[in-house]
Amino acid sequence: MTDRGLVDRLAELAVVVGANVQAGQVVTVGANIGQGKLARAIAEQAYRRGARFVDVSYFDPYVKRARIELAAQDTLDGVPSWYRARVRALAETRSARISLAGPTEPEALRGLDPDRLGRDQLPWLNEWMEVIQSRTVNWTVVPCPTEDWARLCFPELPEPAAVERLRREIAHVCRLDEPDPATAWRARAAELGQVGARVSELRLDALHLQGPGTDLTIGLLPSSSWLSAKATTVDGLEHLPNVPTEEVFTSPDPERVDGHVRSTRPLVLADGTLVRGLEVRFERGRAVAIEADEGAAVLRGRAVQDEGAGRLGEVALVDRSSRVGRLETVFYETLLDENAASHLALGDGFREAVDEDDAARVNRSGIHVDFMVGCAELDVTGITRDGRRLPLLRDGAWQI
Amino acid sequence: MTDRGLVDRLAELAVVVGANVQAGQVVTVGANIGQGKLARAIAEQAYRRGARFVDVSYFDPYVKRARIELAAQDTLDGVPSWYRARVRALAETRSARISLAGPTEPEALRGLDPDRLGRDQLPWLNEWMEVIQSRTVNWTVVPCPTEDWARLCFPELPEPAAVERLRREIAHVCRLDEPDPATAWRARAAELGQVGARVSELRLDALHLQGPGTDLTIGLLPSSSWLSAKATTVDGLEHLPNVPTEEVFTSPDPERVDGHVRSTRPLVLADGTLVRGLEVRFERGRAVAIEADEGAAVLRGRAVQDEGAGRLGEVALVDRSSRVGRLETVFYETLLDENAASHLALGDGFREAVDEDDAARVNRSGIHVDFMVGCAELDVTGITRDGRRLPLLRDGAWQI
Repeated sequence: MTDRGLVDRLAELAVVVGANVQAGQVVTVGANIGQGKLARAIAEQAYRRGARFVDVSYFDPYVKRARIELAAQDTLDGVPSWYRARVRALAETRSARISLAGPTEPEALRGLDPDRLGRDQLPWLNEWMEVIQSRTVNWTVVPCPTEDWARLCFPELPEPAAVERLRREIAHVCRLDEPDPATAWRARAAELGQVGARVSELRLDALHLQGPGTDLTIGLLPSSSWLSAKATTVDGLEHLPNVPTEEVFTSPDPERVDGHVRSTRPLVLADGTLVRGLEVRFERGRAVAIEADEGAAVLRGRAVQDEGAGRLGEVALVDRSSRVGRLETVFYETLLDENAASHLALGDGFREAVDEDDAARVNRSGIHVDFMVGCAELDVTGITRDGRRLPLLRDGAWQI
Repeated sequence: MTDRGLVDRLAELAVVVGANVQAGQVVTVGANIGQGKLARAIAEQAYRRGARFVDVSYFDPYVKRARIELAAQDTLDGVPSWYRARVRALAETRSARISLAGPTEPEALRGLDPDRLGRDQLPWLNEWMEVIQSRTVNWTVVPCPTEDWARLCFPELPEPAAVERLRREIAHVCRLDEPDPATAWRARAAELGQVGARVSELRLDALHLQGPGTDLTIGLLPSSSWLSAKATTVDGLEHLPNVPTEEVFTSPDPERVDGHVRSTRPLVLADGTLVRGLEVRFERGRAVAIEADEGAAVLRGRAVQDEGAGRLGEVALVDRSSRVGRLETVFYETLLDENAASHLALGDGFREAVDEDDAARVNRSGIHVDFMVGCAELDVTGITRDGRRLPLLRDGAWQI
């Protein structure tokens, strides 16, 4: 596939399968500086599909750097009123949203004071969480291959080879090497939906995760259901919030998480901070110790940002058939890496994963930080309400 | 001056002299894709000066191209609600605004249907005109040298020489080659202010412009005053809306313009359309014929966009001491080219140029399109209320 071919197919996937853009909709596209090629291709595809307006906004991490370095400390968590108003307006106008993922300009935020960096979450805004929960916007996140990203993933390769490999792997995990990617995604979404339904039917009381560096029990809420790929807006529009997606996930009981867990892949925070070798200890639901080989301070800052930021909002299971997991690549990008392996997330949970009775018990926070804990050696066991232990994942394979 | 030196000095000029950014202000920066270096330097300078937040937005003309090519005809003049709301919020919050000027990506809009192109004015929004008139925002427009721009101005030079020449000329016209550019601009603004005051005192009834291809009489309003470089917000903040600036200007009587005029330099519309060899014939204030060697159709579309779009909102006089005019360069950028020579503008006028009694008579429109008519051979003559003719410009020199 040529570069142009990949960009066009990714754009079509984002518009048609990911966000499922409707004629007459406004489509907002969130990109970083350096992701222009895909952003423009998405604009073309969206207009072809009848979009009324495509609003591409480019985030510049070097402008953020100037802020972190130079702005007054007490201004770092603020944004102008129109930032929040715009996000709310997307919901009111039932717009679509396509976000591009993938590291760009990896040097832009290097070496900044982690406390100051932790105060500025841009380009993330908490209002997005409200919009997602309100299910008023058909949205998706898709990967955007760039040269910067290729160098980060494959530093041992000469640049043209690194770029070529990243493009090939992204085409593969996005199923763009299938004759009809849209059909392939419908099939995969159906499979994941069936697995989620089977685990949900077990009505588990808790999960037990055991593996190298990990011994963690995660209580579930009485009505915790396992969701997967497909989401539906209040207006009935189906969309795939993440492309690719390989997970089934739910929101656990934020008060009943105990033990310790070691991450199996690096993670990159929304502001670009890399966290490697993460280890977290939980007591009665709360992360009481966060250690890491790199990036611990910024993550600790995030985890005390609000009452729910140090508790789990998500537990997600990924089996070994994941196309991401079957590659050996560390992408330094949550969208891909989380789909390689089972993972947890600190912060906001999914109200749509529980019944109305439990909705108030789902964790709430302004953050949502995924970290990968799965590997072939991680045993995931379900614990039923009457104390039986049911193997869910062994050697990365579903046991149910 | 190194490239970095020029960028930093332009940024400082924009923040300190142009917009006069105050501590605690939000600063919005409007840039095109490809103008990131200066936008980032402005962010740094603004934060150094105590800005609360710097909101850089990048406009991508290729996304606009996709819209013009593919969107439904009846959607082309619309924008999402949050576009207009954001501009109004700038006024409400007394924010500062810095816009970067200069052609980038000259191919982006080439060959598009002029009628469709004429319907989409982005990145311009009519709400900006209201904000400018309300004098609530301290704003400036500064030039941003880029390689694209250098190639456009100096196609006969090899690229490095073209870039070097554009940088040198922009440094010169922005007075960055002075030991203290801020002091130099204060002095030039004072000179222009004095010329404007002298012409205003004449209380002219009309101007007569006569030169090659031009014989035009422009009526003035009873209270038309001649403004120049410096503007002041309702809160008393002085700023220079354009850097560089070499003009004295006022708003004429939109009902009393008769004759014909030939432009002496090309102009570039906000959407990137180049108009060359423009000739306009006016009858009783209205442009009744618009011809050009290139770009006439798009400009004709603009000129019928609303009731005032085909009438004059501005007449500006520039003498031969202009640093822009003394260069032989055509910059294909109104910010610079209009300061080379006397010029007129179709569209919205300046209510602040007249007394309250005449405010309702100043032309109103959603557009403001400057076109240059001055040259050494253009005689500008003032006509007093009692019919005397007073030479104002001869051979490009002030006669008063």
